[in-house]
Amino acid sequence: MDRRILFINPNASSSCTAGIADAIAPFGPGLEVTSLADGPPAIVTWRDWFRVAEPLCRVIEATPADAYVIACVSDPGLEAARTATDRPVLGMFRCAVAAALARAERFGVIGFTAASLPRHRRILAGMGVEARMAGWVPLNLPMEALTDAVAPQRRIAEAAQRLADEGAEVVILGCAGMAGHVAVAREAAGVPVIEPCRAAAAAAVLAAMEEVVAPVSA
Amino acid sequence: MDRRILFINPNASSSCTAGIADAIAPFGPGLEVTSLADGPPAIVTWRDWFRVAEPLCRVIEATPADAYVIACVSDPGLEAARTATDRPVLGMFRCAVAAALARAERFGVIGFTAASLPRHRRILAGMGVEARMAGWVPLNLPMEALTDAVAPQRRIAEAAQRLADEGAEVVILGCAGMAGHVAVAREAAGVPVIEPCRAAAAAAVLAAMEEVVAPVSA
Amino acid sequence: MDRRILFINPNASSSCTAGIADAIAPFGPGLEVTSLADGPPAIVTWRDWFRVAEPLCRVIEATPADAYVIACVSDPGLEAARTATDRPVLGMFRCAVAAALARAERFGVIGFTAASLPRHRRILAGMGVEARMAGWVPLNLPMEALTDAVAPQRRIAEAAQRLADEGAEVVILGCAGMAGHVAVAREAAGVPVIEPCRAAAAAAVLAAMEEVVAPVSA
Amino acid sequence: MDRRILFINPNASSSCTAGIADAIAPFGPGLEVTSLADGPPAIVTWRDWFRVAEPLCRVIEATPADAYVIACVSDPGLEAARTATDRPVLGMFRCAVAAALARAERFGVIGFTAASLPRHRRILAGMGVEARMAGWVPLNLPMEALTDAVAPQRRIAEAAQRLADEGAEVVILGCAGMAGHVAVAREAAGVPVIEPCRAAAAAAVLAAMEEVVAPVSA
Amino acid sequence: MDRRILFINPNASSSCTAGIADAIAPFGPGLEVTSLADGPPAIVTWRDWFRVAEPLCRVIEATPADAYVIACVSDPGLEAARTATDRPVLGMFRCAVAAALARAERFGVIGFTAASLPRHRRILAGMGVEARMAGWVPLNLPMEALTDAVAPQRRIAEAAQRLADEGAEVVILGCAGMAGHVAVAREAAGVPVIEPCRAAAAAAVLAAMEEVVAPVSA
Amino acid sequence: MDRRILFINPNASSSCTAGIADAIAPFGPGLEVTSLADGPPAIVTWRDWFRVAEPLCRVIEATPADAYVIACVSDPGLEAARTATDRPVLGMFRCAVAAALARAERFGVIGFTAASLPRHRRILAGMGVEARMAGWVPLNLPMEALTDAVAPQRRIAEAAQRLADEGAEVVILGCAGMAGHVAVAREAAGVPVIEPCRAAAAAAVLAAMEEVVAPVSA
Repeated sequence: MDRRILFINPNASSSCTAGIADAIAPFGPGLEVTSLADGPPAIVTWRDWFRVAEPLCRVIEATPADAYVIACVSDPGLEAARTATDRPVLGMFRCAVAAALARAERFGVIGFTAASLPRHRRILAGMGVEARMAGWVPLNLPMEALTDAVAPQRRIAEAAQRLADEGAEVVILGCAGMAGHVAVAREAAGVPVIEPCRAAAAAAVLAAMEEVVAPVSA
Repeated sequence: MDRRILFINPNASSSCTAGIADAIAPFGPGLEVTSLADGPPAIVTWRDWFRVAEPLCRVIEATPADAYVIACVSDPGLEAARTATDRPVLGMFRCAVAAALARAERFGVIGFTAASLPRHRRILAGMGVEARMAGWVPLNLPMEALTDAVAPQRRIAEAAQRLADEGAEVVILGCAGMAGHVAVAREAAGVPVIEPCRAAAAAAVLAAMEEVVAPVSA
Repeated sequence: MDRRILFINPNASSSCTAGIADAIAPFGPGLEVTSLADGPPAIVTWRDWFRVAEPLCRVIEATPADAYVIACVSDPGLEAARTATDRPVLGMFRCAVAAALARAERFGVIGFTAASLPRHRRILAGMGVEARMAGWVPLNLPMEALTDAVAPQRRIAEAAQRLADEGAEVVILGCAGMAGHVAVAREAAGVPVIEPCRAAAAAAVLAAMEEVVAPVSA
Repeated sequence: MDRRILFINPNASSSCTAGIADAIAPFGPGLEVTSLADGPPAIVTWRDWFRVAEPLCRVIEATPADAYVIACVSDPGLEAARTATDRPVLGMFRCAVAAALARAERFGVIGFTAASLPRHRRILAGMGVEARMAGWVPLNLPMEALTDAVAPQRRIAEAAQRLADEGAEVVILGCAGMAGHVAVAREAAGVPVIEPCRAAAAAAVLAAMEEVVAPVSA
Repeated sequence: MDRRILFINPNASSSCTAGIADAIAPFGPGLEVTSLADGPPAIVTWRDWFRVAEPLCRVIEATPADAYVIACVSDPGLEAARTATDRPVLGMFRCAVAAALARAERFGVIGFTAASLPRHRRILAGMGVEARMAGWVPLNLPMEALTDAVAPQRRIAEAAQRLADEGAEVVILGCAGMAGHVAVAREAAGVPVIEPCRAAAAAAVLAAMEEVVAPVSA
Repeated sequence: MDRRILFINPNASSSCTAGIADAIAPFGPGLEVTSLADGPPAIVTWRDWFRVAEPLCRVIEATPADAYVIACVSDPGLEAARTATDRPVLGMFRCAVAAALARAERFGVIGFTAASLPRHRRILAGMGVEARMAGWVPLNLPMEALTDAVAPQRRIAEAAQRLADEGAEVVILGCAGMAGHVAVAREAAGVPVIEPCRAAAAAAVLAAMEEVVAPVSA
């Protein structure tokens, strides 16, 4: 399969982009990561969330691929991006939630900062599964700390354990760049942990495959 | 990745088992299919659904793997099977629904016979997404016809189109062994089509990967 | 009314069977209790839950009655049992939940052990009333203690009171064999208490009556 | 059991009262029916529905019983009546819906006139089960026709069949006085039929029993 | 606009009526307040709630207006009142909830006494938005204290803050006569506060305008 | 009240802006309408929807007012706009839905083109009231036709009547610029009709008033 799956990080952080690349490396060749050169340092505000939609569409229009992933866990611009190509476009948070629902009936989310909650809730409302979120716990750490190999481990473990206590049967890491902390969260929670970059990679591989098998022009 | 993912077809139909193997072949090595030697010809009744749970557990206990898939779109015995191993166990229908939710907000299902509807509804109720099913259309064809390369195409196309008319933004093939008909359904519906064997394969690859990365003994 | 209503205890515990018989005695003649001779000591695991379905069907096929009750509060095998006869078959937990909904809008459940919660939730999801469960509190007592006349009273009273505090307007005893503790729970909770054996008896009497009045062959 | 269960018909129609008495006769002695002497001919409007609440409370206060049933399928005054006594008070429609949920997951309702629908919906919303109503079909017949032994049979059969076609797995007769038509509806629908007077009788017998077993003064 | 909008306070408390008049004064001329001369001192019980319906209808029938507001936050008699006129009739709690939903997705309610909760829940169930209530906190103060300019401020501030802590993004004052405390609640909660008299005034102005623009006789 | 309420039309159509001004004129002085000079001709695509968010924020930052209304029935940029000021910001569709819920329990929507449905659904999902939409009927007319005084009347009447037939108890005009057609829709539907510009005006007047009464700096 000479597939090409393009992950587009809507922020300009190269460490974040590198973290995404690391996370999806186990899926083998054909998955690439790019970023918005003039994107914000991170998608922190609703204005960021709206603003990156158009640049994301332009990258998609300019870059042929078999499938695209908006590589940010608030899925910014997804609906617009889907009109910019007839190939599948996926959002990382939606993919993570879907992967969680395949594993268990109640999920918890470890968020980046409290500001992410309204965007996560909006996505869950769109998917119709708000009532299945057992808990949502923010880390409230600076981005640098988050991507550090050790610094955020205690906070992540606490959050994971608390979510399990609140009834989560599976835990979603609600931020890109935490792939290195899956084991810590898994150990603390005692339940499966979903890393959104990988969940999106798996979903994109599937989507690209189906569409290759069954191309349509509409 | 020297992974081993075991698909267990709970029925004894070798053509069905072969169809599953064909469907997941694009995922490469490491995915195997077995079946219950003394399973029923198909999972048609609730008694079949309950009866295969224990044999499924025994196969899992006897066969080490990194992840397991109950390879039937009514997910029989899933809850029991999950207690028979500390590795991930997935149900094909749940995986297909999850994959659909990653693509769109309202899905339709092409069922094998009308008898499958209550089991699909039960699963959707467990997942909390009953309200997102835009339609459910049974084929009501004999199993032989279904696996034929040509015979069921008109019926499948009609069902797919009707589901799209009823608001489905993605169509789930609600029966194993229809992978050869994805293109027909896609063409007729004009929306993405989810084939459950492949959806389960993608989910199992992801689950096995996470658990390899983060093994726990609980 | 020469009715015959058969309660089938899917476990092999004779004290449990006797407890069911005591609970339904006030409903007068015509209600009988039997059990699965080779059933498990209790329905504790999902494997138990699946495994008893087929033996339950066989008892129903071999024993004519006007109505049947699966006499276990996780309603094992109910869907299968309903295909084994054209007479009504009822599940004790569903009957208890239905009886609770006739009394008030929010119910709490006293469970046997924490392991029962997923099965109760599945049933509530099937009925569409998950959101009406104000609380679920397990006793986590050994079966022997539970059927003792005095031992579990403090635990039951605490559970009942806690459920009322959490908003339950009616409390369901989520285990067969607790009929002797209705008064204790009622006193502690200050709200009506539903005993599932009796709730099922009332529902079965009603179902048998309607079906006698209006027999159909389908 | 020297129980006394009082059914109170909030309308002044003696044929309706007689119909209720006939319906519940199979439950044996101890069940009585009375009516509001100065009630409206039928509960047709919302003003009727509000207006009968206070007279119903006065009858309850003046008439000791072990349990009470508001014998009208729009459950008028139920919340008020529950404050007029410390004994159980039940509404016939809630009891019928609860009985239906013990039998199947989706119910249909045969209504008296289209005017009843908002009141039924309000009750279902209160119970949290609106989404489980597969259909609602009014008879739109005059009350006299309804209680006739033969006249309404064709309309009832048509309604029952239509509800089954719309997915009802159990049909509720949404009007008191239709007990004589259970067989017709059952035959036409091919699914169980719930007669609300009897459903309320069964629920009241259960409620009276629990409260006798476990009296409380609160 | 020579509109006349009639607020009808269903209780006989003149201080309550005066409080309503004060609250809606900013809406300018054309809004009047009357009360039920022989109404209860307050709508405290379900019997009060049912009992005022008919007198409310009579006031409406006797008093021409462009729109009516049932000026009590349990919306008593609303359904009946809507049949007593072909002009719009609004309930204050429904208007407050609607106004809250226009501002944010999760609301909290400060109730008068714990007894109001079931009536608020019933209304929310009717509107279909029960799941959006983040919290409900009663003041449990005597009516006199409530209308005092200073006495209830601490309690109101505590309630408002607690609701915000529980996730309310907007707070509804769930009692008429608290307009003077909007600022206190706003300050404590840090989120918008909805005063029900004013919410109803705004809704009634809108409703009267539309109906003037587009009169119909049905 | 020297209030200033600013309606911002995110498209550049001057006839649309004029239509909004006409619609809200009955609310008296203090309500102004502006538009995005370089906005799209209409908000037709998701890319339009995302793209206008930032310009809307800039207008708000540059123009002091007591309250703002995003004057487009897909509420573009609302979440971002709410962070650009500490004054209330309202979306016209949310206001219309809220106004509908104050009038009745089930609403229908007349949409501009089929492309609006996903955006309306997303908003309803956010508000939690998707299940209360009885129907959604698009006009599929060109914008010019829509604002014509006569041309679209037949289509609007048909849509309104169809929504009433589908159970709508109130009809929302799902497009700005249809205020002149309220009477036609009202006549055809036989139920109240909500015009979104006026619904937003009423909500903004209320919001501005509360915030004037209770200013906060957070």
